[in-house]
Amino acid sequence: MIVGDMEQKMRHARQKVQDAIEAHHGTTLLSTGITGDDARMALAAVKAGARMIEPNHPALALARGYKGVTSMHVAESLRHEISVDQMAEAVHGVRNVVGNDIYITVGAAGTFTEVMPTPLTEEDVIKLARAGADGLHTHKSTIEDLKDVVDMAHRYGLLIDAYIAHPSDRHLFGIPCETPKEVAETAKKMEDIGVDFVGLMTGMSYEGVEAGKIADPVKERIDALVKAVSVPTLAEGGINLDNFKAFIGTGVNIIVVGTAIDDVAREAVDRVVRTLVEHE
Amino acid sequence: MIVGDMEQKMRHARQKVQDAIEAHHGTTLLSTGITGDDARMALAAVKAGARMIEPNHPALALARGYKGVTSMHVAESLRHEISVDQMAEAVHGVRNVVGNDIYITVGAAGTFTEVMPTPLTEEDVIKLARAGADGLHTHKSTIEDLKDVVDMAHRYGLLIDAYIAHPSDRHLFGIPCETPKEVAETAKKMEDIGVDFVGLMTGMSYEGVEAGKIADPVKERIDALVKAVSVPTLAEGGINLDNFKAFIGTGVNIIVVGTAIDDVAREAVDRVVRTLVEHE
Repeated sequence: MIVGDMEQKMRHARQKVQDAIEAHHGTTLLSTGITGDDARMALAAVKAGARMIEPNHPALALARGYKGVTSMHVAESLRHEISVDQMAEAVHGVRNVVGNDIYITVGAAGTFTEVMPTPLTEEDVIKLARAGADGLHTHKSTIEDLKDVVDMAHRYGLLIDAYIAHPSDRHLFGIPCETPKEVAETAKKMEDIGVDFVGLMTGMSYEGVEAGKIADPVKERIDALVKAVSVPTLAEGGINLDNFKAFIGTGVNIIVVGTAIDDVAREAVDRVVRTLVEHE
Repeated sequence: MIVGDMEQKMRHARQKVQDAIEAHHGTTLLSTGITGDDARMALAAVKAGARMIEPNHPALALARGYKGVTSMHVAESLRHEISVDQMAEAVHGVRNVVGNDIYITVGAAGTFTEVMPTPLTEEDVIKLARAGADGLHTHKSTIEDLKDVVDMAHRYGLLIDAYIAHPSDRHLFGIPCETPKEVAETAKKMEDIGVDFVGLMTGMSYEGVEAGKIADPVKERIDALVKAVSVPTLAEGGINLDNFKAFIGTGVNIIVVGTAIDDVAREAVDRVVRTLVEHE
């Protein structure tokens, strides 16, 4: 009864992403961190040109000071306790202020590789879709789990961005692949099961890498990804103001940036508060 | 049964404010806006030296994109719809990350001059106190209403900051006083009914005022306030990076700054997002 409706919803959402990629000459920004969940900062990001926004549950844990968490690392260990209702509220608020032309993909308890049993339910997906999400931001670590999420998301008109990780990553944010060959094979498999946007986690060790460059092994993995699939591609992790241009040069379609934006906002607050309190 | 407990709680809270004023050479900052309700930015403000933080309901309406509101002016007309539970969650999250030495005063539905019947209940006050608030940030517009709030707040160990307004203010954020003489008389009355910190709304017209200065009529009103009471004093409204030093020169003990901080954070996000999307 709603298959056609949801196909239309997804077509419209895919078009938003295509438009964003074209508007930014082949590589657009998925703006996250504080611009993903705070409506004031989401609006600032969109006014500055961002056309894709990502609220997610670990960032919301930080925003709400949940259990006193102040680092993303710790937030990852309790993010599954942030309720889907809280995420839906965040999506709804951001949607309210940014309008309908902006693509919103949301990470919520159950869309990542959670540390506690956290099934994503049909009710959750419907809630997030009705709150205004276009897609689910996922970090599942097996093709099988990912396929379950893809199928459910598509039933309710949500697209999926999903990621490939490295086995040595501190937190597992995708399907682990050791070599560029494995990256290519897995990316193709992800496309085959219906993933709409295939991403690569790039927050690997940058030891010994010159500022503004990408480590060669990471570059090889991005190359493998970009060549393997025909859907739009993403790079997430470790992307900042120093190195983003190197990422754009790889042909990846979407760079995901959160921490680097939060850091700049934090430094701005730091500067203004220091000015206001440090007087004679 | 809890009178002594609550007196001790209030003594401790008053000491925090005294310590903040001394640490900042007589004039401290009450940091609000995004630093009042977003735990990430509250922590940044505190690390930069802020010792007083103010979450409030109109700012939370903006943070949550409530009904699509994007301006403080519109937020004032629907702020009473932000629930005390939401404010308690914000207070709790900020308290979690800033620790117990920071003074937190909270504005919530019923503590301002609301446009709809919005009584503040005992249950509300207890909730906010237990969430971690030290005080209530109030903007009542008659001495009688203010006295009701003071009495209830003190029963549950919360202190009160309250304000004097000008009859021509766009939104009524305090007890309206036309002349400096009235300001002095009303300030004294406020102190007499138990207001712990007496403030003045200073967001009046700055037309024709040189950058970095305070309009003479505002200066006269601040002078009147500062001389009239022995409790700490506040100035709120229109204080920014250009003119804050002039406020400090008046002898007022606490300057309240929100919008000017939000603007700087917003500009920072704008800059970084533009950099990330405006490439060839």
